[in-house]
Amino acid sequence: MTQSALSLEDARANISEWFAPWIQDMDLQVEAVEHGFARLRVPANEKLSRMGGIMCGQAMMALADTAMVFAAFSVLDQPREIATVQQSTSFFRAVAGKDLICEARISKSGRTMLFGDCTLYMDGQPEKPAGQATLVYAVGGPRQA
Amino acid sequence: MTQSALSLEDARANISEWFAPWIQDMDLQVEAVEHGFARLRVPANEKLSRMGGIMCGQAMMALADTAMVFAAFSVLDQPREIATVQQSTSFFRAVAGKDLICEARISKSGRTMLFGDCTLYMDGQPEKPAGQATLVYAVGGPRQA
Amino acid sequence: MTQSALSLEDARANISEWFAPWIQDMDLQVEAVEHGFARLRVPANEKLSRMGGIMCGQAMMALADTAMVFAAFSVLDQPREIATVQQSTSFFRAVAGKDLICEARISKSGRTMLFGDCTLYMDGQPEKPAGQATLVYAVGGPRQA
Amino acid sequence: MTQSALSLEDARANISEWFAPWIQDMDLQVEAVEHGFARLRVPANEKLSRMGGIMCGQAMMALADTAMVFAAFSVLDQPREIATVQQSTSFFRAVAGKDLICEARISKSGRTMLFGDCTLYMDGQPEKPAGQATLVYAVGGPRQA
Repeated sequence: MTQSALSLEDARANISEWFAPWIQDMDLQVEAVEHGFARLRVPANEKLSRMGGIMCGQAMMALADTAMVFAAFSVLDQPREIATVQQSTSFFRAVAGKDLICEARISKSGRTMLFGDCTLYMDGQPEKPAGQATLVYAVGGPRQA
Repeated sequence: MTQSALSLEDARANISEWFAPWIQDMDLQVEAVEHGFARLRVPANEKLSRMGGIMCGQAMMALADTAMVFAAFSVLDQPREIATVQQSTSFFRAVAGKDLICEARISKSGRTMLFGDCTLYMDGQPEKPAGQATLVYAVGGPRQA
Repeated sequence: MTQSALSLEDARANISEWFAPWIQDMDLQVEAVEHGFARLRVPANEKLSRMGGIMCGQAMMALADTAMVFAAFSVLDQPREIATVQQSTSFFRAVAGKDLICEARISKSGRTMLFGDCTLYMDGQPEKPAGQATLVYAVGGPRQA
Repeated sequence: MTQSALSLEDARANISEWFAPWIQDMDLQVEAVEHGFARLRVPANEKLSRMGGIMCGQAMMALADTAMVFAAFSVLDQPREIATVQQSTSFFRAVAGKDLICEARISKSGRTMLFGDCTLYMDGQPEKPAGQATLVYAVGGPRQA
């Protein structure tokens, strides 16, 4: 098993550096980082809910993109600039009253492009996904400290 | 020219009712609503920016989905439940130091499904789009007051 | 284990009825149909290749949509009209000199909408996918004989 | 007005070189090529139709990708290898009994990536699109003769 280029500790420590304050406001928790994989959780949260207590789709898309950043850093040979090129998100069912979990997996990691796939589900219901996202990133030069 | 089923005044008055607090935190402004069209603005904003002052892609996706809701309400015969089914977003260039504007247009409004197309660009640069999103919504029954 | 509503025999027997002659020209083979799943193969084929012997991306998209139709029929309570609403396809690597295989899985089967996910890979290389597609279908009334 | 890097004559002359025989079987006609733009037509055709005389969605996706190749070559500084990275296609309405036309436009042409947007409509109905596709291409080195 290949080792992750990103440790769980570093992932958690860098949230405030890597993401905008507005993303940090989602209170997302990094639960796991492995080589080519990350699992994040967004606690059930009034802030992210529209009328009827349904988590807004915008939060689901944001979670997918954010989770994939960790998965991407887990496979890169060194810290590099990455930029989202394309994200396609499908929404299967409403998310309400439960934490939302996102599992992000790298599908293909190339020299200049990186592809990933996210599954989104409510806590305790991994077999009934709430949505799915596929993402394409451009991989650039080394990241500036 | 068909009249919009949603007035600019109602659009502005209902932001807090239709969207999650986290979306309201984006400080988005509804600039125009016409039949099948809405234009929204997100002011340049540290909250939405990651390192380097670049607006996060998550905010761009969220803006597109939000703008399309207004465009959708402008064509529906009565207030109805709508749910995002699919959003495909492409990111052309970085957004930095300028307001981000989104123009949302309805491509097809059917009885049960609605399709739309968003162009995202920095203030003053409509001819150099920063991104594009296509969206699919499911249209449901009348919205509860 | 839930039984497939479509048998492998019926799947194979109906290719000429369900698909356009141009799709039949791909020589696709239905290898497996289970509840919520179908696996199809397109033999390596000069007809589908552009210069350099690379299978054209158009064939990969077509295979994904076609495979998902079988997966959809495997979960529907009765033969129904279905229509592709949205397909998002990512291309990871070139396909050349080998059969292309597509595994299509239903992600969510609702009353009016159906979602699926396809993985495309070259024969013998399931761990190195060549592409991925997510699909949304609208489910309609019973299919006319 | 910037001149197209691809003439209409060259576009038409190279169909058999640039595309797989299976794509040539669609009988597509290049109607216009300008800088950043191409318009292609697929004649109404039994080969491309499934039961009920409806043009198959696979043909619509294939047409979009093919049209965008011409649009791409119209903006590149020299003939280069390009590869489709992602295509997101939405299907608005059925196409039946009429030619299908695709207008492909380049949204952003960068050094290594190229983005485009296609509108698909039935002959004589440009104001009622049948579908839309957004595409991402990777741009590589000079094309080998």
